[in-house]
Amino acid sequence: MTAPHPGRAAPEAVLDLLAERAGASLADLLAFAAIPSVSAQAQHAPDMQRAADWLGGRLRQAGLEVVEQWPTAGHPAVYAEWLQAPGAPTILIYGHYDVQPPDPLGRWHSPPFTPTVRDGRVYGRGVSDDKGPLLIAVQVADAYLSAAGRLPVNVRFLFEGEEEVGSAHLPALIRERRARLTADFVLSADGGMWSAETPSLTVRARGLTALEFTVRGPAKDLHSGRHGGSLHNPLHAAAALVASLHGPDGRVAVEGFYDGVQDRSAAERAAVQALPFTDGTYLEQTGAPAPYGEVGYSTLERQWDRPSLDLNGLWGGYTGEGSKTVLPGEAHAKLTVRLVPGQEPGPTADRIEAHLRRHTPPGVTLEVRRSDHGARAYALPSDHPGYRVARAVLEAEYGRAPVDVGMGGSVPVLETFKEDLGLDTVFFSFAVGDEDIHAPNEFFRVPRLYEGQRAWAHYFAALAAMSQT
Amino acid sequence: MTAPHPGRAAPEAVLDLLAERAGASLADLLAFAAIPSVSAQAQHAPDMQRAADWLGGRLRQAGLEVVEQWPTAGHPAVYAEWLQAPGAPTILIYGHYDVQPPDPLGRWHSPPFTPTVRDGRVYGRGVSDDKGPLLIAVQVADAYLSAAGRLPVNVRFLFEGEEEVGSAHLPALIRERRARLTADFVLSADGGMWSAETPSLTVRARGLTALEFTVRGPAKDLHSGRHGGSLHNPLHAAAALVASLHGPDGRVAVEGFYDGVQDRSAAERAAVQALPFTDGTYLEQTGAPAPYGEVGYSTLERQWDRPSLDLNGLWGGYTGEGSKTVLPGEAHAKLTVRLVPGQEPGPTADRIEAHLRRHTPPGVTLEVRRSDHGARAYALPSDHPGYRVARAVLEAEYGRAPVDVGMGGSVPVLETFKEDLGLDTVFFSFAVGDEDIHAPNEFFRVPRLYEGQRAWAHYFAALAAMSQT
Repeated sequence: MTAPHPGRAAPEAVLDLLAERAGASLADLLAFAAIPSVSAQAQHAPDMQRAADWLGGRLRQAGLEVVEQWPTAGHPAVYAEWLQAPGAPTILIYGHYDVQPPDPLGRWHSPPFTPTVRDGRVYGRGVSDDKGPLLIAVQVADAYLSAAGRLPVNVRFLFEGEEEVGSAHLPALIRERRARLTADFVLSADGGMWSAETPSLTVRARGLTALEFTVRGPAKDLHSGRHGGSLHNPLHAAAALVASLHGPDGRVAVEGFYDGVQDRSAAERAAVQALPFTDGTYLEQTGAPAPYGEVGYSTLERQWDRPSLDLNGLWGGYTGEGSKTVLPGEAHAKLTVRLVPGQEPGPTADRIEAHLRRHTPPGVTLEVRRSDHGARAYALPSDHPGYRVARAVLEAEYGRAPVDVGMGGSVPVLETFKEDLGLDTVFFSFAVGDEDIHAPNEFFRVPRLYEGQRAWAHYFAALAAMSQT
Repeated sequence: MTAPHPGRAAPEAVLDLLAERAGASLADLLAFAAIPSVSAQAQHAPDMQRAADWLGGRLRQAGLEVVEQWPTAGHPAVYAEWLQAPGAPTILIYGHYDVQPPDPLGRWHSPPFTPTVRDGRVYGRGVSDDKGPLLIAVQVADAYLSAAGRLPVNVRFLFEGEEEVGSAHLPALIRERRARLTADFVLSADGGMWSAETPSLTVRARGLTALEFTVRGPAKDLHSGRHGGSLHNPLHAAAALVASLHGPDGRVAVEGFYDGVQDRSAAERAAVQALPFTDGTYLEQTGAPAPYGEVGYSTLERQWDRPSLDLNGLWGGYTGEGSKTVLPGEAHAKLTVRLVPGQEPGPTADRIEAHLRRHTPPGVTLEVRRSDHGARAYALPSDHPGYRVARAVLEAEYGRAPVDVGMGGSVPVLETFKEDLGLDTVFFSFAVGDEDIHAPNEFFRVPRLYEGQRAWAHYFAALAAMSQT
């Protein structure tokens, strides 16, 4: 007889209780997702409060001994803790109870805040991002406290209400409440897996820096017939500036942009290459006519392991119907850069600003506005205990070893946890990347609610067991 | 005793009557400009009708024997004629009774439709463009018919109500009414002079062609973090396309763009060079930091005698406050080209479209939409009798020879008059280019009402005299 898989460690009583409560767990999600907790829209402020109250109530119902609302200058965070496992690790469980706006409403097949089960999926705004994955952690804590009277590890829950609006007040809250947030690492119920078939762990995320610029020519909009050809058109100058940012090889043409950036190891590159991914499927999913990017790298490498610079907005002049013969006084651009290890947000923005200034043609002036938000790239050390437990648990649940994946996007809170609390973050969400988060008909796969519960139950136990060996 | 100046030909009785009526003429303008005949705004449709009625009444009061409203699919044109000078030339007098919208209202120092006299100027929407200049022609006809019982030439008045919205129905109207519009040439009361100090005649105008394009990448907006660097961003592609349209020498870089374009003669270039114009003053007026344009040409040559290509609008992605990390699915651009003699609207647009298609990078697709409006450049022959009379009259009125000037903008009706009626157009407006037309606090200089009346009175007489010699 072989030894039990290290990823299967939860008591049978806890697993049985979770199985018994399958219907109740789904009902939890339907009730939670029915609250339109849209953080971006002022008219939903009462719903935000209602969602925070509902979540606090659910945590109390789970048996958490301390449940608090932590006010911020925006929406409150919900905090809870159970710290009665002396000697065991302490996990800070992160998630968010706010959701994206549901627009465009007309494209939903069932109302966004009337969560509806169809074909093994729950449809509703926020079910995948992040109410379903967040509830899993609460429900597992509940099952432990009900079935065993205790948890194998110490847990702190920190659920914010502003993730969808940039987590603006979270860093200050974390610094302010630092003493209440001591832990060994962060286990994030937010995030998502690679696909429903392939278990995955997100082990790196690109960083972010942003800036905007305005090109100014004449002091006001002029008639493009009278003046065309005799003054520099800010739209031409802005376009030339934008065009100057990339070379024909798809590389960012800003001097020093790649300084400090290193290729990942041959083994790591091979691992990315081995992932079940084809450009053909990617183009089908995105509707783009062809892949495009830095020469010498695959699509996934371009997304995860190479820095990129993207215009997010570019505008000026007349944008309505028909034509208006205007030589506009201004043109505007917004851009963001995704950073990889070796790049710093501020100095990278400095280089871009210097490039723009150097390339500003005569006849116009340039104004650059720097964004105050930025984040370094994040990488989880491959020997992190929270990561090793996650690998084992996922392998046990899915019968295959998880793959390591990167994240093209940025999670600024990762840097906050690292800088202010000294904590690494392990992503352990059971959402899947294809669940149309931020879009109409967001859904969450019902079976993954139960897969997630089992995995979290094993996770708590396996982590406790590992820390005792 | 020297012979009388050929530009001073009007009977004293007519000039005396005009002088007597100085107050009444100004009152005419105040009444006419008080009618908010804004052709672009549906709520002003009754005012448009009121303005057409007022103008018809004023023409009848002047003694015109035939006064009609000519309906169009939009606003009506006002037509009047006096054709009792057999053997004398027939002039088709063009102008427009519609005005630009007055917005932004808050920047007017007196209400736009309460015409107000301050410091020798009438302030009000439309006083310079084109109600003041138009009334001059009517008042002069009135003075002739009152003082002399007849006009020295035959006149047809054609005042449209849609100039400020692109004269969309004028070409059809002109073709339909061709038989009523026979004339020797068009004398336009619309247009404007170079400056209040220097009399000028507009003898050429650039033509126009327009197109729009859309660059498409992914089928919908994507997250620029997740996808940035692995798909071509339509904003980058659009910017590169726009940047490709000009070379570093300020020339349009479209193959064949300058085919057929010739430099004006050394004498003509010298005449432009000799005009009272400095780049310094131009930059003060426009607020632009420096002149810019095709190497080897002066600012006025760039405006009048060289073709130009201008983006009028460029947009895509997120344009609101703050940042949104979007890799947009589309980017859009609108552009117009100003043409000079030797260029044709359609083939020039063909070349630009071919250029755009050739330069479209991989990873995006291009859609080009062609505008249906276009106009060739216009040039008045220097031996045109209507032009020679205008020169003489202006020299007599201002004591100095007028300068020939070009027009950077386009007047599509010039091509309609030429193509459909076979008529050249002589501009004889007493508006000045600095009178803030299309802007708040539009004004018309009161003395120029009287200068214009004298000039038009002499013009009629001098043209008749010339045709008899």
